[in-house]
Amino acid sequence: MSRIAYVNGVYVPLRDASVHVEDRGFQFADSVYEVCEVRDGALVDETRHMGRLKRSLSELSIRMPMAENALKVVLRETLRRNRVVNGMVYFQVSRGAAKRDFLFPSPDTPPTLVVIARSLDRAKGDAGAASGIAVITLPDNRWERVDIKSTGLLPNVLAKQKARQQGAKEVWFFDEQGYVTEGGSSNAWIVTAENTLLTRPAESGILRGITRTTLMDLARRDNMVVTERAFTVAEAKAAKEAFVTSATNVVMPVVKIDDTVIGDGTPGALARKLRAHFHSVAEHSV
Amino acid sequence: MSRIAYVNGVYVPLRDASVHVEDRGFQFADSVYEVCEVRDGALVDETRHMGRLKRSLSELSIRMPMAENALKVVLRETLRRNRVVNGMVYFQVSRGAAKRDFLFPSPDTPPTLVVIARSLDRAKGDAGAASGIAVITLPDNRWERVDIKSTGLLPNVLAKQKARQQGAKEVWFFDEQGYVTEGGSSNAWIVTAENTLLTRPAESGILRGITRTTLMDLARRDNMVVTERAFTVAEAKAAKEAFVTSATNVVMPVVKIDDTVIGDGTPGALARKLRAHFHSVAEHSV
Repeated sequence: MSRIAYVNGVYVPLRDASVHVEDRGFQFADSVYEVCEVRDGALVDETRHMGRLKRSLSELSIRMPMAENALKVVLRETLRRNRVVNGMVYFQVSRGAAKRDFLFPSPDTPPTLVVIARSLDRAKGDAGAASGIAVITLPDNRWERVDIKSTGLLPNVLAKQKARQQGAKEVWFFDEQGYVTEGGSSNAWIVTAENTLLTRPAESGILRGITRTTLMDLARRDNMVVTERAFTVAEAKAAKEAFVTSATNVVMPVVKIDDTVIGDGTPGALARKLRAHFHSVAEHSV
Repeated sequence: MSRIAYVNGVYVPLRDASVHVEDRGFQFADSVYEVCEVRDGALVDETRHMGRLKRSLSELSIRMPMAENALKVVLRETLRRNRVVNGMVYFQVSRGAAKRDFLFPSPDTPPTLVVIARSLDRAKGDAGAASGIAVITLPDNRWERVDIKSTGLLPNVLAKQKARQQGAKEVWFFDEQGYVTEGGSSNAWIVTAENTLLTRPAESGILRGITRTTLMDLARRDNMVVTERAFTVAEAKAAKEAFVTSATNVVMPVVKIDDTVIGDGTPGALARKLRAHFHSVAEHSV
């Protein structure tokens, strides 16, 4: 079956799906995106992803490419045409195509909307989580507005590539004071000796992860102690557990940070529990 | 006459010119570009632009999309098909199109090459230079690797848009110590009371501008004193003259910084002289 993409009003075979060479997403990274997990045919935390998309667009003064309800229909139709039951849907909105100029084009320039869906093997994800992943740490060299989920991802690309070269699956960025900010495409968490969950406040140089937010709901529902505060790389290396959260990896245990083995080198009990229970608290929209 | 673009081996009408939705330039800003002035049918400083392109690509481990000589032919053919005698040629190279993943795709993925050319009205540029421009200053919030000419330009877009909203044509970024780094799409210069030209060293958080480099050759040829050192916003506001350099604006006098009028509010003598003589020292390749 050939995959199908949605581009500006049309469903086309993915191999033919294109945007204009003067699309501002291509020339200026003047665009934002969301990735939503799809599980058993339902979109996970769609309401929060929509909310964050609208916030990113609003910060950039890009208008929604269509009404939210219409966009929800397009996401579902893209999933249906690609027969995705378990996987993800990726949607990107740019400021549209216009003669190259740093300045915003005329306000009547239609934003570009691209939607791509893909099946993912859930068993493979679970197998990865059963072993856990290694992360490396690198100084955070990104721009200041990482709270906007823009496609200006070159620093993330380079950092994650460096992680791969060192046998790791993710990078944790740290700020000038040595505090972990977030992962290359995930939020960073640790568990202290007292079983307190720590993650950096979303107001301070990180993206407000949707999985992160939902996981806080879960942890509090289950009477775990969650503290939003920054932690250092050194604290992380001495932690009882560590893990990352993202829409496609849900909760992924971290068993090694740089050369330091975390805990006994296997996924921690709390991380495993949170992963197992995540979907009992997340929103599922068919 | 309809404009023509070159995209991956084919010359196509610009209106139909497209890249794949999974081009890494579109999804990750994983691409670099150059803009070369065209004057009287010749490419200005082509050798230096090619050198910088190769450096940017090398820093990102993206290979040249074709041999340098072949690329030079494509630039010329794009100019010819668009009948550009005075104007600019824009060329962008991305890491190519591949299934979305932060990690580099297989090394056999061909890079994407897009070339666009456009005529520019030289008289209009000269008229603009005769009045000079206003700039605003903003904290530099970009990533650390601005020495790479990547398409991760969203901070520049937002800053230049803010400049327009305040009646200015350019933004000067300043670092945490209050020193000017560079313009949103230009290098920043001032002239001191002693007629010394000051511009920030290219090794420190700025792009090594081609026009900037060539202008240093010119200034030294004409026995002006050029010092590469950072200057503060306060120094700039007290300067005798100020100007910016870029491939499309050449030397553009600055007559106002934020609310401060520079000199007598008209283009300075040295800036005018440098603009007038620039093309006597720049390389012109037909």
